[in-house]
Amino acid sequence: MRVRSVSVVGIFLVFMFSFSFLSFAAEPATIQLPNPQKEGGKPLMAALNVRMSARTFSGEKVPMQTMSNLLWAAFGINRPDGRRTAPSAKNWQETDIYVATADGVYLYDAKKNALDTIITKDIRALTGTQAYVKDAPVVLIYVADYSKVHAEGFDKQILVGADVGLISENVYLFCASEGLATVVRAAIDRDALAKELKLKPDQKIILDQCVGYPKK
Amino acid sequence: MRVRSVSVVGIFLVFMFSFSFLSFAAEPATIQLPNPQKEGGKPLMAALNVRMSARTFSGEKVPMQTMSNLLWAAFGINRPDGRRTAPSAKNWQETDIYVATADGVYLYDAKKNALDTIITKDIRALTGTQAYVKDAPVVLIYVADYSKVHAEGFDKQILVGADVGLISENVYLFCASEGLATVVRAAIDRDALAKELKLKPDQKIILDQCVGYPKK
Repeated sequence: MRVRSVSVVGIFLVFMFSFSFLSFAAEPATIQLPNPQKEGGKPLMAALNVRMSARTFSGEKVPMQTMSNLLWAAFGINRPDGRRTAPSAKNWQETDIYVATADGVYLYDAKKNALDTIITKDIRALTGTQAYVKDAPVVLIYVADYSKVHAEGFDKQILVGADVGLISENVYLFCASEGLATVVRAAIDRDALAKELKLKPDQKIILDQCVGYPKK
Repeated sequence: MRVRSVSVVGIFLVFMFSFSFLSFAAEPATIQLPNPQKEGGKPLMAALNVRMSARTFSGEKVPMQTMSNLLWAAFGINRPDGRRTAPSAKNWQETDIYVATADGVYLYDAKKNALDTIITKDIRALTGTQAYVKDAPVVLIYVADYSKVHAEGFDKQILVGADVGLISENVYLFCASEGLATVVRAAIDRDALAKELKLKPDQKIILDQCVGYPKK
């Protein structure tokens, strides 16, 4: 009886230890974001009046609520049929937003309002050729999935570029409204970054955009 | 003395008649817009929440004050150094906005806050291959001046497309804020429209965007 009790307790302890160890060791696959706040912000014309690009960032992290609001503003779902805050050509919704922070890179899942972990490594310095990119607490990496793009010639890149521009301006205005600094950028070593993000051949990095608090 | 008076009055009348005739016959080369209202509008997040594309328009005309606000929101000047409400790659500012209405086509001059008359002819039906385009009271035609674009290969069309997307999203949000209907479009007979607009070889039509009041 005594032996059996010890075994039961032992098994329980081993189980608890393994569980704790696992939960600390493995990065959660999906991080649920708080619900985005779909009201508030500066009046639109006032936000447009202070819209600008800024390239210096303080070290201050972006809170999860702000991250959720930012991503919803960028390309969140604003209608029951799944349509988004920015349009896309023929509703292809070919743009994915990868989010690089000091902790890793995550893929924004607008439907689940969540971040799927892609890698647990700080690759912000790879998101642009300029020195300031590593200082931004958040870099949004706009990746087009060309398997969803059904256009050729001139239209193909124009539409993919425009679809990213439409999203990027939402980010600009959100930052203008919230007192955040931001700048969009094309100067990227796309091959090196695509390798880190483990992109498929149909996925191309289009632009990326730093977001953070301005350096005082 | 009497003869001289008659002559003076006669010359005066001929002058006045000619002046009136001229002012009615010739379209004014430049239409000054009222100052844009840089405050007000829906809170940004609320505007994002109702952002959508709409393709049916009432016949109602867009008042000049709304036109001025719309164009300033789209790509107006918001800083003393001439920078704009939307960014552009390396600040090329290569995008021009042509404005097609029932009365003609005008080029938006952000610096002068004015519309320069290009043609006095209704060419709205030419701005898209869909039937609804002729019903929109305003069509914004986004034209890139490639003489200002210093990029090659993949980046070239991506940047030009993105720069138009950044402007177009400002228009979307302005319309969402003001209860206007809008949709951006790539299905354009670009050659036919370029000919009507008398574009130079370096100028390319990228996208256009209908704006008007929604059909009730």
